[in-house]
Amino acid sequence: MKFSIERGVLLKAVAQAQSVVERRNTIPILANVLIEAEDSDVQFRATDLDVEVVDKAPAQVERAGATTVSAVTLNEIVRKLPDGALVTLAEDSAAGRLSIQAGRSNFSLATLPKEDFPVMASSDYTTNFAAPAPVLRRLFDKSKFAISTEETRYYLNGVYMHVSQGEDGQVLRCVATDGHRLARIDADLPQGAEGMPGVIVPRKTVGELRKLLDDDDMQIAVSVSETKVRFATPDITLTSKVIDGTFPDYTRVIPQGNTRKMEVDAGDFAKAVDRVATVSSERSRAVKLALDADRLVLSVNAPDSGAAEEELAVAYDDERLEIGFNAKYLLEIASQVDRENAVFLFNSSGDPTLMREGSDTTAVYVVMPMRV
Amino acid sequence: MKFSIERGVLLKAVAQAQSVVERRNTIPILANVLIEAEDSDVQFRATDLDVEVVDKAPAQVERAGATTVSAVTLNEIVRKLPDGALVTLAEDSAAGRLSIQAGRSNFSLATLPKEDFPVMASSDYTTNFAAPAPVLRRLFDKSKFAISTEETRYYLNGVYMHVSQGEDGQVLRCVATDGHRLARIDADLPQGAEGMPGVIVPRKTVGELRKLLDDDDMQIAVSVSETKVRFATPDITLTSKVIDGTFPDYTRVIPQGNTRKMEVDAGDFAKAVDRVATVSSERSRAVKLALDADRLVLSVNAPDSGAAEEELAVAYDDERLEIGFNAKYLLEIASQVDRENAVFLFNSSGDPTLMREGSDTTAVYVVMPMRV
Repeated sequence: MKFSIERGVLLKAVAQAQSVVERRNTIPILANVLIEAEDSDVQFRATDLDVEVVDKAPAQVERAGATTVSAVTLNEIVRKLPDGALVTLAEDSAAGRLSIQAGRSNFSLATLPKEDFPVMASSDYTTNFAAPAPVLRRLFDKSKFAISTEETRYYLNGVYMHVSQGEDGQVLRCVATDGHRLARIDADLPQGAEGMPGVIVPRKTVGELRKLLDDDDMQIAVSVSETKVRFATPDITLTSKVIDGTFPDYTRVIPQGNTRKMEVDAGDFAKAVDRVATVSSERSRAVKLALDADRLVLSVNAPDSGAAEEELAVAYDDERLEIGFNAKYLLEIASQVDRENAVFLFNSSGDPTLMREGSDTTAVYVVMPMRV
Repeated sequence: MKFSIERGVLLKAVAQAQSVVERRNTIPILANVLIEAEDSDVQFRATDLDVEVVDKAPAQVERAGATTVSAVTLNEIVRKLPDGALVTLAEDSAAGRLSIQAGRSNFSLATLPKEDFPVMASSDYTTNFAAPAPVLRRLFDKSKFAISTEETRYYLNGVYMHVSQGEDGQVLRCVATDGHRLARIDADLPQGAEGMPGVIVPRKTVGELRKLLDDDDMQIAVSVSETKVRFATPDITLTSKVIDGTFPDYTRVIPQGNTRKMEVDAGDFAKAVDRVATVSSERSRAVKLALDADRLVLSVNAPDSGAAEEELAVAYDDERLEIGFNAKYLLEIASQVDRENAVFLFNSSGDPTLMREGSDTTAVYVVMPMRV
């Protein structure tokens, strides 16, 4: 194998691949990236056995072939090469080395046989559709904060992507929850997504997917089977196993009868919550919301260290209400609001509270109260 | 005690004070900042018993007095208050609380009695002089990287500031070394510094001092005794115990007879060292320098992971030489060069190597070789 490639193109492909590689590996080949050169393309493939990313980049291929080298070391080398350099990678299979040459720099890296690299088995994808990157970005960005980190509840360790019934017909829906808060985000159902099996996309895959969606407005090809999900751009294919479990029936958690409505500027609200929470050093900081006609008082009382109170002007015309929340959860849902005011719908101080952005019902958040 | 102060002024004073406070404290009062209001000034004082910082800020003092509160919590609160806010701090001594009010935010923090706060005893300073901030900045910035972290060699855990004989008369000199490398930085001797006792300024104090010297060209008042050193601007006074030990005779370490001279662009050199070191994952990465007429070849050989080699154009007209160094040490000394080319003076592959910036002899670095 021998090919030449522009440093920037190489860096982008290798960086994406190496981010899938786990830093601590007991299986040496999993630390490596599989490089395959053929025709006028080179493919870089990395995996942790659960997620696989394949990055394709144009190159001048002089000799087709394939080998594997340390993904982290290759990425570090390419990152440190000067911008604009032409990089030549050549395999010396007799010596078991890959040489990397750019300008007056020469590197030689130990290789492992390409035959040992675990290429992910392809799946029988029953659903195939295309969705614009911004739509997928919104679905996952606004839900991922609620993913559980409790390993015992492994079926909550991801985002549940499925087809559901929205107000105006079927929607593509992403839901995440850790039992304390929940996010439910809807998008128009893309053509071809009807009948898609619901899948739980693992946290790590959500993170890797985010990089695919980074820059632009391109269409993302999505393929789903009962066991796998695949997201692809023309250059990058991300394939992941889905979590083998049943996502709980979240619909019962979303309150329907909450009528006490408070509307508040989300930015002001988040800043005030952040400030009053400062006086408490406990991990689960309870913030008390006391609501009265058009007036919200946020307060925290930490007997050992101090107390804090802040008043905010809000729109509220229901009866007096006091309710407590974990400060971190309040901050996280308030920071999801990007366009309009945050609208909170309360029932009583013991019931889950609902939050949405203005009158938009395609993004709904639920947060459980805390006793204060 | 009661006073009002502009948020930005308060933040600057409290931030400087709280940075001295150690995060883990067994003595509760050491987590606090002592606030003293009198006339039209407020003083903020924090200490870890070895270093003390006192920050003075103008305020509208309504009621003189003093108390102590958690430095970290106060800093966090002030940081989160909106820019430009007027902040009012008032002590309720009966309740043992300090209230902090800004706009519609109200905080109340637990206090500890001011009498319990350990104010550092003043010292009998035998030497007092003034030095421009940029001069002190250069002396400490260029030497601190070589400070040892080995606690058993406590007398190397700081920068040795003393008066010495330079090429053109007496100089103010800072030296630091960890036995593997050494930095020796000279400045013109300020008036009044003659006869100053040599003191070892601890690493933490060097870090705190750096913040004092940050912005401008002001004069810094320096006071030195056998046991303490003090640096002061009109607003901030940093007092520190010095390390109670004898700094070794560093002059014997600085080679005098090194004649093989190599001149190289410091930036290109550092980048090349960084690149070739990538292939080795060991902590002490040895880089080999092979010198020949106007040609330097840097190389690293890590049998398990790979090898790297890079050629650089240099000015060198002595006989062929091969010498090895720790890559990290080479990078660190090369990054001290800010104006001119790096000039290396070698003797043999087993002898310490000297580096300086161009023909400037007021900043000299020594690095020990490694067998490669």
